[in-house]
Amino acid sequence: MYEGIVQELIDELGHLPGIGPKSAQRIAFHIVQTESLDVSRLAEILMHVHEKVQFCEVCGNVSEQSRCNICRDPRRDAASICVVEEAKDVVAIERTREFRGLYHVLGGAISPINGVGADSLRMRELMQRLADDTVTEIIIATNPNLEGEATAAYLSRLLHPFELTVTRLASGLPVGGDLEYADEVTLGRAFEGRRRVSA
Amino acid sequence: MYEGIVQELIDELGHLPGIGPKSAQRIAFHIVQTESLDVSRLAEILMHVHEKVQFCEVCGNVSEQSRCNICRDPRRDAASICVVEEAKDVVAIERTREFRGLYHVLGGAISPINGVGADSLRMRELMQRLADDTVTEIIIATNPNLEGEATAAYLSRLLHPFELTVTRLASGLPVGGDLEYADEVTLGRAFEGRRRVSA
Repeated sequence: MYEGIVQELIDELGHLPGIGPKSAQRIAFHIVQTESLDVSRLAEILMHVHEKVQFCEVCGNVSEQSRCNICRDPRRDAASICVVEEAKDVVAIERTREFRGLYHVLGGAISPINGVGADSLRMRELMQRLADDTVTEIIIATNPNLEGEATAAYLSRLLHPFELTVTRLASGLPVGGDLEYADEVTLGRAFEGRRRVSA
Repeated sequence: MYEGIVQELIDELGHLPGIGPKSAQRIAFHIVQTESLDVSRLAEILMHVHEKVQFCEVCGNVSEQSRCNICRDPRRDAASICVVEEAKDVVAIERTREFRGLYHVLGGAISPINGVGADSLRMRELMQRLADDTVTEIIIATNPNLEGEATAAYLSRLLHPFELTVTRLASGLPVGGDLEYADEVTLGRAFEGRRRVSA
């Protein structure tokens, strides 16, 4: 509908996840109407993002060096590894400030429908990290959905021969939520995982 | 939270309209994980969009030449001008295939709160287009909201001395909508603008 480059911009923006044709159009017009300085900043970052970003050789997190910030930090507890699906999950857990150990990013979850098997995830790399007996606890923090649960089950079987504490994040009611609106599976898990209240 | 360029990318994406921190993060990870070819395509378009895009010297629509596609098209009816707020509105009207005349983009609507007066809109340029008596009809297609209605009222007073048919787009019930859910102002307008049904 638009002439040349404006339409190209709308098309390219429309390929990004979560951006439909209306949003793409709104963003394109915003870009056309703003200062060219801001736009060229974004363009420059896009140009160099693939050169600069690599994945940490230890944990698989996004990084600008061969080892990520967390793996390089000597204050982190090397005895405990939290296994997550994606690098995004590392940041989500870091925000809680509850965990001071290291991470391991699998790069997804087992999903036969999408053709993702255990061998396409970074399972072998995790086993290699267990070789020197530093690690004593593995926290499996895959998503509490079908794929995440399957991955957690597979992983716990794989970790069984090692002398390790293997834990899974608790499922239950979200904080600030309403009992009435919780689905039956979540509510069932909350019952199952109930804890004694200290008086 | 992220290292260097990934965080910069998230920040820059977060400045775009309609993109919150979660969306920015999702898009950034999508970009990091896709082929660098697609990303450099977007980067290149962003680099050149400000050089290539200009505004049509006649109607103010976005264009890659000094006159836009519509103004250059000899098949369009030069006797009729549709006045809109933004270039986006031109495309919205073009999609209906109901109008074969020319356009005039005001570049906004009168809004004292946002400091937009009539003199910062392209009103004078519209008056200049009326000088040679080619134009016989002006269709005011500003948005049916407070600012758009104020602009339409101002414009119709301005156009009064000319010998022109000045019309305003009809307000009423949206097609496919439900009478029950229509607000009272819209329903009132639908009554006001009711039309005789031919038997």
